[in-house]
Amino acid sequence: MSESLSLGRLVVVGVGLIGGSLARALRRHGAAREIVGVGRSRRHLERAQALGVIDRFGELPDVVAGADVVVVAAPVGAMDALFEQMAPQLSPTALITDVGSVKGAVIEAARRRLGAHFGRFVPGHPIAGTEHSGVEASFASLFQGHRVILTPVAETDREAVATISRLWALTGAEVSEMGPDEHDAVLAATSHLPHVLAFGLVELIASRADSQRCFDLAAGGFYDFTRIASSDPVMWRDICLANRDALVGRLREYGSVLATLTETVERADGAQLEAVFRRAKQARDRMLRARENTPRQPTRQR
Amino acid sequence: MSESLSLGRLVVVGVGLIGGSLARALRRHGAAREIVGVGRSRRHLERAQALGVIDRFGELPDVVAGADVVVVAAPVGAMDALFEQMAPQLSPTALITDVGSVKGAVIEAARRRLGAHFGRFVPGHPIAGTEHSGVEASFASLFQGHRVILTPVAETDREAVATISRLWALTGAEVSEMGPDEHDAVLAATSHLPHVLAFGLVELIASRADSQRCFDLAAGGFYDFTRIASSDPVMWRDICLANRDALVGRLREYGSVLATLTETVERADGAQLEAVFRRAKQARDRMLRARENTPRQPTRQR
Repeated sequence: MSESLSLGRLVVVGVGLIGGSLARALRRHGAAREIVGVGRSRRHLERAQALGVIDRFGELPDVVAGADVVVVAAPVGAMDALFEQMAPQLSPTALITDVGSVKGAVIEAARRRLGAHFGRFVPGHPIAGTEHSGVEASFASLFQGHRVILTPVAETDREAVATISRLWALTGAEVSEMGPDEHDAVLAATSHLPHVLAFGLVELIASRADSQRCFDLAAGGFYDFTRIASSDPVMWRDICLANRDALVGRLREYGSVLATLTETVERADGAQLEAVFRRAKQARDRMLRARENTPRQPTRQR
Repeated sequence: MSESLSLGRLVVVGVGLIGGSLARALRRHGAAREIVGVGRSRRHLERAQALGVIDRFGELPDVVAGADVVVVAAPVGAMDALFEQMAPQLSPTALITDVGSVKGAVIEAARRRLGAHFGRFVPGHPIAGTEHSGVEASFASLFQGHRVILTPVAETDREAVATISRLWALTGAEVSEMGPDEHDAVLAATSHLPHVLAFGLVELIASRADSQRCFDLAAGGFYDFTRIASSDPVMWRDICLANRDALVGRLREYGSVLATLTETVERADGAQLEAVFRRAKQARDRMLRARENTPRQPTRQR
């Protein structure tokens, strides 16, 4: 999986935590002759260039002309417009991929906007990140030992999948494939739901009259639990909207679990509480052991 | 706050993560001539002795005869019976303290069971811990830079409070006082609620048909969010029951926040979602900065 890759121009649309970390990792392996950034903020792109994350920056659609690979690392809500903007200048051999946390909605946008290029669009999702945003937070080893899921569809060119897979393998990621629906269902449960729950808890506590005292007395458990509530609000707004159906399903299920737990506490049913807590602890400890037996990292990098 | 302390016999009832760490820290400062452990499992106490955490172990009530300080570091649900067992052998000068995460219920148990000794009972709560349990997980620096809350009541002897405060200060903790009701209200929001939420999320995911795939694809955010779901089920059952009223209040409030968020996602109200997420992120980032400006540690030890 560590075959080398020799690209000409790589364009990264959105040079933030994920786009910047991918650029850094690929540069380290000399995988592209030139890495060009695209973004909304000139100051931000100048910073990325000064940090050596990108060689230069440009604007859509011109910058994608002659690009071998275009990586779209923007919030999923922005992707429809970005695909539309780049489509006229994409070469007939250019590969397009994305890093969005939702795959169904992104695939629909790509199908709608990329036209004849859609077969060379490889939907992807690196399951890595931190709660920090921006190119300053990016680092080359972010994907090391983490999963990258590719969710090709029937029309997706298999050679394109193989190339994008090699690209991610260079970063040290473990690449696998999955259907977009399954991806979105799983991520709704393990990532999108917990983010909403963490945002909701901070919202609840921040609105209390004694919020200052609460934050002041919060222990490590609270900080870990709410770490993901420091994530980028626009990115998470977009994810919630793009994966709305699956997320609403999980939110309703969770609401029901919570209502049952609330009633269990209210009627002081210690045996039932202990049984739920024990089952949960056992499941998490088991999953942690399984994880420790793989080459992947048990927690975030850095 | 780093005045020395010269106790004769210190008895630790429950030599687990908290009791063991306190014993280790006090031993490091030579604060007691002898540290004696009490517990349900002989094997466990032998292990604590072999690790040098305690000098020896004994049984209630005999072991508390002649003790200067008795620290009760057992699950809060066990404290009523422990107070009752020890009361007949407590000396008229012995100080009694506890480390329970709930204070109102523990104070009531102490008032009921300690009789004439109740004035020398100093309710306490070190806001420190990890998701691990048992003496093997204990370490002397667990309390370093963490808060310890003492919640004395009108009858509590002030000299007793001063001594227990010195004892905790030796561990490197920052000791402060608060009313038991306020303590229980704050902790219900920042600790007891998040624990139930984390147990509930693992319960929900473990019950899915694709749970294996979910755990397999979970990212660092999920692991941090659910870390506290690896906590001891009996300890958390007892906390939920002992702080039932406050916890049920917070669970209902959270259920209402969650219902609103669910509807917001369902009607695809991006502006509202972004506003909530932004407010939460700002509150958490602010609290993190405030925390970094204090000598306390931003996250758990080790």
